[in-house]
Formats: sequence, structure tokens, C-alpha cells
Amino acid sequence: MVQVTLLGSGATRPLPHRALAALWLQVGGRGLLFDCGEGTQVSAQRFGASLYKLDTLLLTHYHGDHLFGLPGLLQSMAALGRTEPVTVAGPPGLDGVLDAVLTLAGPLPFALCRHTFGDCRGSLALPSGAVVTAFPARHRVPCCSYLYTLPRAGRFDPDKAKALGIPVALWRSLQAGQPAGGFTPDQVLGPARRGLRLLYATDTEPTAELAELARGADLLCMDATYADDADAPKARLYGHATCAEAGALAAEAGVRRLWLTHYSAAVTDPEAGLAAARRQFPAAEAGFDGKTLTLTFDDSRKDTP
Amino acid sequence: MVQVTLLGSGATRPLPHRALAALWLQVGGRGLLFDCGEGTQVSAQRFGASLYKLDTLLLTHYHGDHLFGLPGLLQSMAALGRTEPVTVAGPPGLDGVLDAVLTLAGPLPFALCRHTFGDCRGSLALPSGAVVTAFPARHRVPCCSYLYTLPRAGRFDPDKAKALGIPVALWRSLQAGQPAGGFTPDQVLGPARRGLRLLYATDTEPTAELAELARGADLLCMDATYADDADAPKARLYGHATCAEAGALAAEAGVRRLWLTHYSAAVTDPEAGLAAARRQFPAAEAGFDGKTLTLTFDDSRKDTP
Repeated sequence: MVQVTLLGSGATRPLPHRALAALWLQVGGRGLLFDCGEGTQVSAQRFGASLYKLDTLLLTHYHGDHLFGLPGLLQSMAALGRTEPVTVAGPPGLDGVLDAVLTLAGPLPFALCRHTFGDCRGSLALPSGAVVTAFPARHRVPCCSYLYTLPRAGRFDPDKAKALGIPVALWRSLQAGQPAGGFTPDQVLGPARRGLRLLYATDTEPTAELAELARGADLLCMDATYADDADAPKARLYGHATCAEAGALAAEAGVRRLWLTHYSAAVTDPEAGLAAARRQFPAAEAGFDGKTLTLTFDDSRKDTP
Repeated sequence: MVQVTLLGSGATRPLPHRALAALWLQVGGRGLLFDCGEGTQVSAQRFGASLYKLDTLLLTHYHGDHLFGLPGLLQSMAALGRTEPVTVAGPPGLDGVLDAVLTLAGPLPFALCRHTFGDCRGSLALPSGAVVTAFPARHRVPCCSYLYTLPRAGRFDPDKAKALGIPVALWRSLQAGQPAGGFTPDQVLGPARRGLRLLYATDTEPTAELAELARGADLLCMDATYADDADAPKARLYGHATCAEAGALAAEAGVRRLWLTHYSAAVTDPEAGLAAARRQFPAAEAGFDGKTLTLTFDDSRKDTP
């Protein structure tokens, strides 16, 4: 299962009760952060996201509202005694950004592993066993959207294991997908089951690829910068989406849940565009700092693996 | 008069209700900021410090808890349409820091004027008419403490002005210290009166020079990182002060008011060290985010000009 917490739901400028872009995912003791706007470390404290657990930070792009919390986050992790490496990944330009961040934050007592998604494309296997796939957002600078997938092995068949004479001591490894004692998992596991799929797509306009990759996803956390449909031309100009457009994309993709996020600083009520989104996708939800959800494997769903 | 607002009273790591180092001073429409820890721009919104008015930022040093709010502050000022220049001053190392900040914040629509206090010493005249004097703090890196002085002209003597035949239309200029119509202010003004004096001294240990410059000051806003007297050795090690030491210095200098600030993240109650400070200086006050005070000229005081 995946614990999802929206740490910051704002764009451009933080407001007293709205931090800038950041989404936290936790699987067991492993933490993943999408974006790191100013105030992320305070939101993490406020909403119970333990920075001790952070092993991977995925930056969508390098606009300040997605990035300026990073020097402080790194320095606080250092102050808290961290020694394990942290992977930071993002679109091209990462090296220049991290060099400047480290000029400000100074030497750290842990390694920063860098991974650049060339052309905003690529995949990264995470320590939690999940996989993140980057694909291009449509924004005014190079920007990645991310598909997060937590796979789920097939069902273990004890009858097959007994028939093959596999000692019970080896079952746990095979169940976890590890070969053991000369046996392989595929001998005792059914077909891979549907895992969990989440998309983090901000800053971006709606795109066909986003709709395609979001098909049947458990959660789409999407750019909804503008509440008012009339701001669609502005959304085109700056590479964002309106709440209604986020809803339309969620409906087209048939996602289970949609969280609206990345509200313009002019949108002071997070529900300002909710009605517009719900006209397109009735299950749309307004994001807010601290909004949280536990995604669990769902055996009733037989659709996308 | 000077409006003083403590925007951030924390050290090292921000807490949910305590931002990092920042002190705001406002004189008329002119704003001055000492330090700019992460969260400063949110505190400014929360406590009514208008960033439109900021013309000068004085950094004590370049540790993250005094600096990491700067990229976001600059970008927000840009987003709010600022075009007037901003002066940023600090100890040696300023250029490297600002270059990194601008790498992250990108081009700005206003000029950043840089001023480095070589050897942590020097003076800067501010647009408000105040003067800031930098002097060395005792910290583990080069660090400035700052004496802020708002001067006050002598009393205008209308009898002298009449005797000299100065037209009434010129009185206002002379009163404001400007020569007019061939007359000079000293012809009609009494001796300079006591102005306002404030010291911002963090991060620092107590020093003799600080005590000397703080003599009779209206407000000393001072490093009080540790609440417990027993932490004095730690304060020596890291270049800070305990609350009791801040109190002792305030007593020695005979300041009017002492604000304790820059609390260690381990000090969750801002009043934890207040009793210790008050044993040294009974008027000591615990700083907290949003603490504010209006300093006014005081004709009853005849001491330091």
C-alpha cells in the first residue's frame, strides 16, 4: 500500500496556509517526494512525512515554486544526521540546478545521486520496488510528468509448490519474487496482478500521452492552476490547465481519483474550481495541504495490470 | 518612528509555527529586512510586512537558516511586478551566494545592488535616512552584527528663522535638514536630538564591541540559541549565546529592550529561557514570529544622541 500526502498545493507564491508544490509517497519505510517548493520541510513536519525515509526526489522542472525548498530540505536532513544517499532526478538542467543548490547548502554528510531524464523520458526503479516513468509535460520549459507504478506479484500457489517438492523454508523468497534453492518464482506464482498506479502531472497542459498513461490509474494528481474556465487561454499561454480541463482529462482516462493541485496564488479557495472539474469528472477532489490517502491493492479490479 | 516585526525567530530548522531568522523594519514607506530564512515571504504576508516596500536586505552570514528564503522572496517580488532595485548587503562571500541564488531564481525584472562589508565592517546609508553599521559578530564563519540608527535633526527655532528673515516657505526644507534659499539648517536647528538605535546581533557570542555599540539602544534583538545555562559550552563551540548571556549583555549595555531570538530547534517553547534572561535583565522579552513594536523618538531621553 502507498500513503499519499499532498504537502503543498500552491503555485508561484506560497500563501500562509498553502505551501508550494510537493507530493509525498510512502511505501513501508521508503519515502518519495515529487517536487520541493519552499516550505516543503515544514509541511512534512506538519503532516507527518518523515524526511528520514526520503530516498528519492523527483523534480518536474526547475521553476522556483517546485524547487526552492530543496536547499533547506537537504540541510535539515544533514542536521538530523542523515548519512544514506538521496537520489534527485529531473529533466535536463539538473546538474546546473544542483550545483547552485549545493553552493548554498554547502557540503552534505550524504551523497546526492543525480539522474537526468534526457528528453524528459526514462524510467527509474525505486528502492521500494516501485518504478517511476518520466514523460514530457507540455509546459513552457522542459518538464516531466511522472507515472508511478507499484507492481504486484502473482498469487502464490501452495499446491504447485508442494507438487514440485519445494521446501516450505523457500516459499517466502519465491513469494517475494526471488529465486531460491534452484526454483524460480514463475513456477509457483500466478500471473502478475494489478498493482497501483499514480500520476503526478504538473506543470502541464492536458496532453494525449498523459491521458493514455493515466488510463485506469488509482490517482491522478494534476495541474489545476486556474479555477475559471475563462482562464483557458492563460493556461495555454503559460503551459497549465484549468480545473475543468483536469476534470476532462480524468474522465477521458477513466482514472479512479483526481486531485486538483497547483492552484494559482489568485485562487485562495481550493474549492473554487471544484464544481467546474466535477462537471467533467464527478469524483474530482480539491487538493489542499495535508490531504492524504492510502492506496491499497484492489483484487476486485481486473483491468490494467 | 520605526515599526519592528520579528518575522522568524528560529534557528537551523523551521518548525510549523516558527520560521527561520528574519527581522523586518519599516520607516514610512521604506522596508528593511535583516536575514531571510526559508519561510520569510510567508511570514511577511502573515504579519503584514509589505514586500513592495523592501529596499534593503542585510544578511548577517550565509548559513542556510538566514538565507534560504531569498530565492523565493526575489521571485515573488518579481511576480508582484517590482521594478525598483533592491540592495543586498552582507559579509565577504556575497557574490558567490548571490550568483547561486540567481542561478536558481533566474533573471529578475529589477536590479540587485550588491554591497559587501569587507572584514564585516562598514556603513550603509539607507533610503529611509537611517544608517546601518556593520561590525564583526563572533561566529564560526564571517558574520556581521548590525547597528541601525535613525537620526533625528535638532529642534527648529522659529525665532531664529524670523530674525534671519528666512521666508516661511523655506522653513520646511531647513527643518528637514536641506539648505534652502542660501540658508543652511544649522542656522535654525538646535543640536541633533537623540534618534533611534536598534541592534540585530545573531549569530554571535556576546562580545565587548556588541556591548559597547548597544549602549543605551532602544532595542537589542539578540542571539539566544540556547535556553539552558548549561549549554554555554555548546554556545562557545558553535558561536552562539544562551538566553542568560543575552540578558547579561543587555544589562551591561543598558539597553531599553531585549528581544531573545534565534532559538535552537530543540527549544520548542520560546519562553523556555526567559527566566534565565530576566535574572540578568528583568525587561527581557521572548521573541516569537509576529512579535512587533513601534519605536518612537523619545524626548525624555537626553543620553546618547
